[in-house]
Amino acid sequence: MSDALRVIPLGGLGEIGRNMMIYEYGGEAIAVDVGLLFPDAEHLGVDIIIPEISYLRRDPSLLQAVFLTHGHEDHIGALPFLLREMNVPVFCSELTRGLIEVKLREHRLLDRVQITVLEPGQRVSVGPFTVEFFLVSHSIPDAGGFHIHTPLGDVVHTGDFKIDHTPVMGQHTDLPRLAEAGAEGVLLLAADSTYAEIEGYTPSEQIVADALDRAIGAAEGRVIVTTFASLISRVQMVLDAAERHGRRVFVTGRSMVNNVTMARDLGYLQSAPETFLSQRQVASHPDSGTIIVCTGSQGEPTAALTRMARGTHPVVAIGEGDTVILSSNPVPGNEKQVYRNIDALFERGANVIYNRIDSVHVRGHAAREELKIVHRIVQPRYFVPIHGEYRHLVLHRELAIELGMEPDDAIILSDGDVLEIDEGGARIAERVSSDYVFVDGLGVGDVDEFVLRDRQHLATDGVLVVIAAVDRHTGRLTRPPEVMSHGFVGPEEEPALLEAGAKLVTDIVGSGPAGRRDWADLHESLKDDVLMLMQKRTHRRPLVLPVMLEV
Amino acid sequence: MSDALRVIPLGGLGEIGRNMMIYEYGGEAIAVDVGLLFPDAEHLGVDIIIPEISYLRRDPSLLQAVFLTHGHEDHIGALPFLLREMNVPVFCSELTRGLIEVKLREHRLLDRVQITVLEPGQRVSVGPFTVEFFLVSHSIPDAGGFHIHTPLGDVVHTGDFKIDHTPVMGQHTDLPRLAEAGAEGVLLLAADSTYAEIEGYTPSEQIVADALDRAIGAAEGRVIVTTFASLISRVQMVLDAAERHGRRVFVTGRSMVNNVTMARDLGYLQSAPETFLSQRQVASHPDSGTIIVCTGSQGEPTAALTRMARGTHPVVAIGEGDTVILSSNPVPGNEKQVYRNIDALFERGANVIYNRIDSVHVRGHAAREELKIVHRIVQPRYFVPIHGEYRHLVLHRELAIELGMEPDDAIILSDGDVLEIDEGGARIAERVSSDYVFVDGLGVGDVDEFVLRDRQHLATDGVLVVIAAVDRHTGRLTRPPEVMSHGFVGPEEEPALLEAGAKLVTDIVGSGPAGRRDWADLHESLKDDVLMLMQKRTHRRPLVLPVMLEV
Repeated sequence: MSDALRVIPLGGLGEIGRNMMIYEYGGEAIAVDVGLLFPDAEHLGVDIIIPEISYLRRDPSLLQAVFLTHGHEDHIGALPFLLREMNVPVFCSELTRGLIEVKLREHRLLDRVQITVLEPGQRVSVGPFTVEFFLVSHSIPDAGGFHIHTPLGDVVHTGDFKIDHTPVMGQHTDLPRLAEAGAEGVLLLAADSTYAEIEGYTPSEQIVADALDRAIGAAEGRVIVTTFASLISRVQMVLDAAERHGRRVFVTGRSMVNNVTMARDLGYLQSAPETFLSQRQVASHPDSGTIIVCTGSQGEPTAALTRMARGTHPVVAIGEGDTVILSSNPVPGNEKQVYRNIDALFERGANVIYNRIDSVHVRGHAAREELKIVHRIVQPRYFVPIHGEYRHLVLHRELAIELGMEPDDAIILSDGDVLEIDEGGARIAERVSSDYVFVDGLGVGDVDEFVLRDRQHLATDGVLVVIAAVDRHTGRLTRPPEVMSHGFVGPEEEPALLEAGAKLVTDIVGSGPAGRRDWADLHESLKDDVLMLMQKRTHRRPLVLPVMLEV
Repeated sequence: MSDALRVIPLGGLGEIGRNMMIYEYGGEAIAVDVGLLFPDAEHLGVDIIIPEISYLRRDPSLLQAVFLTHGHEDHIGALPFLLREMNVPVFCSELTRGLIEVKLREHRLLDRVQITVLEPGQRVSVGPFTVEFFLVSHSIPDAGGFHIHTPLGDVVHTGDFKIDHTPVMGQHTDLPRLAEAGAEGVLLLAADSTYAEIEGYTPSEQIVADALDRAIGAAEGRVIVTTFASLISRVQMVLDAAERHGRRVFVTGRSMVNNVTMARDLGYLQSAPETFLSQRQVASHPDSGTIIVCTGSQGEPTAALTRMARGTHPVVAIGEGDTVILSSNPVPGNEKQVYRNIDALFERGANVIYNRIDSVHVRGHAAREELKIVHRIVQPRYFVPIHGEYRHLVLHRELAIELGMEPDDAIILSDGDVLEIDEGGARIAERVSSDYVFVDGLGVGDVDEFVLRDRQHLATDGVLVVIAAVDRHTGRLTRPPEVMSHGFVGPEEEPALLEAGAKLVTDIVGSGPAGRRDWADLHESLKDDVLMLMQKRTHRRPLVLPVMLEV
């Protein structure tokens, strides 16, 4: 046990410290956030990606508690996987509790997990740490950061934030509290770097409220609005505009319905009950008095807006006169499917309003000028850029240095790096195991790079199964070989290629010595020669699976 | 044969008229551009996508000639596939000829294709059409549009363009010629819509020249620059900066080397011969005097810059002191792989300069104010927005209407729509077959939606092969069944699952009636029951392939 403060980002897959950050002192640790990542196209068949926690497993008494900054999936989504191994208490804001309870119930963990709601300014002590929650402005209500008092000094962990002086639901980033912390002295600042590339300021949600109100006011027919299901403040704006313009609101799409219901129950959404239309009512309600709020802002294949774009939504058929508003930007990687929906909605005759043609969305993260404000008022001794890909961390670190920090005091960590801070200074002391784990269906971690490589191979050129039944005594085929394929070639080309494959198998088996065969050898040459034949004929390399039966 | 002018976009897969546009009159037609599309992630294993041309096949005497606007793949890449079926003369600018000759040679078509270079202002008559080439400013030299004189009136087809009043290689969009055409009277304008979403003006290449010069001047160590291989003007800027700052240039990456060689041969790149470094020279040349120009601006997996980022480039090892400049933006869909390279280059210690942090790239297409200029000076009777996804066409059409055009005269076409214009007006008269064709290896068109669906299935959950050898007389298994899998589960989970599968097969076959079996029935139940078992155990749905052998 050293008397250093240890700071360890875990399992980000290129996004440092967004998913999980460990603060450790004297053999006791807390985790800030336990999030997931969504797979890229290359992660074939993978559902979600979660941090690997073997570092925490090494010493089951290490982790004392989990603190959650806010309720987005990349900060809470892996919580059930951690808690089912280590049942530690969880501290978070009220809305975040609402969101994780749904998850824990699905994983049948709700009954045995202890969740404590933290009010802003409230302090809680866990081992050597005293942790205080402070509010920040972000694209979900009840988001915050933590002011962590440690025996060596204070840490400010911002979580995802931006600075919005005119937020729509009253939630400012608590600059006075951060200034107070700065005045008291901050040992370490760990701050959001997501938009460290963006010059200037992120605009206020207020400009979105204005743009939405304008668009809804100008629409003559039905209005369909999509946004992130967790962006409750955006839904509130739509409810407000609906009341101003004498419209009623129908909510559709599972996650949107769930979040709106929960937010209404918890008092985060305020609207007269009669504002809402049921599915039965929406059919007979006039278009000019209707707003539909739905999922699908990211072009997700089964979401409500995607179904409307494809003409397969059971309730809403888009056509001339409809106005569709996408109050969101595509998350990187989703651009194609989002724009495909927009194109399809235009083709159905709708007027589509999206961020390229009006300000119907603003980002949820601080741009460079906002970051500078936080650095100036927190005035940390050390700085670790978090929440960003490597280039964002580099740019955020350079920003800190421009503001006067010594280069050695602004430290970029990679996943698993252990930053140790003590009276003597700050240094990367060691590197612990930190990987990520693929979750596919019920399997947690069994899908690895090798399985993905097989899937990639299958995805590119399909599969060819070669079946040879060989007489155990004569070593000859007992029947004509069979070859079948999937995902390899089209139906017109397939018969000739399979026939050529079967003939080759006959030749190979027939040309060998009679009697007992070297099966491994025969297997190899079936595999290689059939592949070579197919590659020559098609320039494709299917996965060839020889099946040999000794009969 | 009608006396109408027929205008038909073919095979764009969402991008109308970028890849191929047919102009037809009195049973004779010309094609403007014959381009390809690159596949999306969903087009598993597909190499390129080309327009389907069954419309042209219907009447082999229809197509008279091909005219190419410029040498980008999305305008020329499918040319060999068309010409090997219909050997018509090709008309294009000199650089475009250089680029298509490489392609035609690869396809062994060069000897039998007639290519004629068109100078700006030169007219050529083909059937009822007289076609004149005019220059435009775009992200490749020698780009242009066509002024097509038809018996019914003139057509202006812009091709891809922007307006640049201070182009780096002297190539302006020929506004005087367009104004002249407008004054003479234009029946139809078909104009680039790619950036119809973007307000204002596209900045001039000159600001890129300035930014590149600044970055190269400020660099102390080696400079590595990547851009599109066809963006010759950008390479010229780098050569100019190299000479100004006393550096020499090494070119690497196959397509960059090919294009630079061809552009030097044709006189499009001008530089002292001693400016260039050979691979042998670059190793011993001082870093502070070296610029490396390379491929990889789109993060292509095997391109030079990607290898440098991964540390696998045979000649260039990136490290502290290196400055890497990405003079390009990610093409939609390539964002992830481009930013992954940038992150990796930062991690190697390089200073990376890209468009988010300095103006080292400008777009190649006209923004809204530029489009307005073209509409005002061409003053067409009818307008068809081309080169864009559906939303771009809608916005471009709305722009034309804002400028005073009658809504009925601004017409959005979809692929295969036949716009007929005659003295009586313009209307979509019919729709002809227009699809796209997948090219995978040597196969042109055999990979269809069904093959892709199989590949998608294989990619998501892998494959499971079930082998049952059944005695033809007793109907019983002659040996234990075998089950094997690929891309399904990890090595630890696999044995138990395969064993459970084999046991299930034993049960199924054993539980049936003795004697001859209904094979189709048995096949179905092996497939369904094994899938159900696997799905229950893993929540995955592999492709199950039962192999049954009667022995």
